[in-house]
Amino acid sequence: MSDDRPVLVIGCGLIGTSLALALTEQGRTVHLADAVPSNVELAVSRGAGSADSVDDPELVVVAVPPSVVADVTLKALADHPEAVVTDVTSVKTELIDTVERSANAGRFVGGHPMAGKERSGPMAAAARLFEGRPWAIVPTSSSAETAVMLVTAVAESVGAVPRRMDAENHDRAVALVSHVPHLASVAVAGLLNDAPEGALDLAGPGLRDVTRIAGSETGLWIDILGGNAGEVRRLLEALRTSIDRAIESLDTDPAELSGLLDAGRAGSGLIPGRHGGASERLAVVYVSVSDQPGELSRLMADTGESDVNIEDIRIDHELGRLVGQVEISVLETGADTLVDALTARGWAAHR
Amino acid sequence: MSDDRPVLVIGCGLIGTSLALALTEQGRTVHLADAVPSNVELAVSRGAGSADSVDDPELVVVAVPPSVVADVTLKALADHPEAVVTDVTSVKTELIDTVERSANAGRFVGGHPMAGKERSGPMAAAARLFEGRPWAIVPTSSSAETAVMLVTAVAESVGAVPRRMDAENHDRAVALVSHVPHLASVAVAGLLNDAPEGALDLAGPGLRDVTRIAGSETGLWIDILGGNAGEVRRLLEALRTSIDRAIESLDTDPAELSGLLDAGRAGSGLIPGRHGGASERLAVVYVSVSDQPGELSRLMADTGESDVNIEDIRIDHELGRLVGQVEISVLETGADTLVDALTARGWAAHR
Repeated sequence: MSDDRPVLVIGCGLIGTSLALALTEQGRTVHLADAVPSNVELAVSRGAGSADSVDDPELVVVAVPPSVVADVTLKALADHPEAVVTDVTSVKTELIDTVERSANAGRFVGGHPMAGKERSGPMAAAARLFEGRPWAIVPTSSSAETAVMLVTAVAESVGAVPRRMDAENHDRAVALVSHVPHLASVAVAGLLNDAPEGALDLAGPGLRDVTRIAGSETGLWIDILGGNAGEVRRLLEALRTSIDRAIESLDTDPAELSGLLDAGRAGSGLIPGRHGGASERLAVVYVSVSDQPGELSRLMADTGESDVNIEDIRIDHELGRLVGQVEISVLETGADTLVDALTARGWAAHR
Repeated sequence: MSDDRPVLVIGCGLIGTSLALALTEQGRTVHLADAVPSNVELAVSRGAGSADSVDDPELVVVAVPPSVVADVTLKALADHPEAVVTDVTSVKTELIDTVERSANAGRFVGGHPMAGKERSGPMAAAARLFEGRPWAIVPTSSSAETAVMLVTAVAESVGAVPRRMDAENHDRAVALVSHVPHLASVAVAGLLNDAPEGALDLAGPGLRDVTRIAGSETGLWIDILGGNAGEVRRLLEALRTSIDRAIESLDTDPAELSGLLDAGRAGSGLIPGRHGGASERLAVVYVSVSDQPGELSRLMADTGESDVNIEDIRIDHELGRLVGQVEISVLETGADTLVDALTARGWAAHR
């Protein structure tokens, strides 16, 4: 990016404000706009940029809800004839089709940062929201290569990992990795409304994992799912086929569930590791921790001094006890080192 | 428990060995048995107890796979006429029915600790495996109250939270909180086997959460699901109805998805908080962390010194970057204190 022309962010929600914060931190001049004036005020108060109107932006980021993104994008392309325009919405085919019917498709490049939070709005924004997250870069059939490079550079500059793909592949991918998993989580969580008395007392971390994303906002999801109805429908039908197979196996021979269970195990192993490549092996080190103040901090400090990089931490404590076991994920190659280091410092640590 | 009579643990897998370790730590005399002699050797080598045959145990814990639990339980009741016998398997109705047809049902109390790990076997065992976990206590219709009290006391002594219920309610509850969520996770993960090229590059933490439990061992699950086929089938049909509704809404009017999405959101809110009561509110504090060695340890130490209890930690870093944002869950009432404390120490922390 050249640094002398400003960036305009239209839409001061979580994503727009986070991006504005990150670009402002880089020293870019960022202007903010939103149909709701108080959102701009809040974003400005967070230091995300200026509410002044903008002259000749290099880039316009349309960070508005899916229901209005097409209109706002077309208007942005018309209002700022020298600007590259991008968006951040979760579904791409319809938007790209619409923009391609305009005269300005060469200056538009679709974008979709795979980042979010349980809270929305400008006050939840964070400059580092995009750190390490995939960011789909979705050109139109006539996007200028310089425009694609600009949007890619912006994604990289805020720590995201750009993934270039066409609209159809994008929508198929997000149906698989986001939209259908969301609906499955919602369907499982919905069953809990009819839980018999006392049943949820037996809930463990597995149920919490499966239903965590079901807790998010409803309105945005209707737009997302409706905008990707074809792909979502196709995968929901595949999901229903699996459930039908499971019901049938339970009726006839539970051993036939093994095909479904094995396929699930294989599929879960295909998700790229937290560490980039698809297959770096993580190992879990289990550490027993007592219910003492500062115990967790001491464990983290001891873990840090072991020189083994922590990939993930899960603390499994519930039902009235603060701390029981801590699961520390590290690369397979560092697990024994960590167990030895923690054991030497008096922790009960196992692989 | 009286401390002068020994405990016999039959089955030196993850659960049996973990319980034996915990009871040995308490100073109990624990004897170990397993159809596979090397499992006993491994458990003994971990310090879980003795391989010697036992005389007059106070308690026999049958910690064998579901497929053999009924036979082993009946034999244990016959072999040890003065002992209380309990088990640890995931499904209860059939076992309780079988035991109730024997003359010894008064000395049997079913048990089910809601604890597990991604690894199985005696080497994965840990004395604190049961810390804070629910432990279903499932009497027969003729269980002596002293027997129920003994099994309840054992569960409490290893840190678990006993939940007394009958077999039917137990099996209905675990179908809801464990078996059907497991199958849903498996079904979603199975879809990933047909992922188009590049699609999984867009995977985020949501997909990882939903599919995490799909990675576990297949064999045990066939036994569990087959043993609870009736309840699992009923809930799978309810799940299928939700998916049918979603497909129908996508075809006609996506706005109709709101019923499903709202029900999911409500259901996920019913899961008891990590802190005992059903409704203590957790808040998430987001902290930006750079990719520096020791950074996480420093954050944990600073968090510890804030005097706010950490309820959970999630580290969201992936795709080649070690660390981006850390999510620290604390009670709602402590969130602002933590943000202030971390900000004062130079961290970029937000709610």
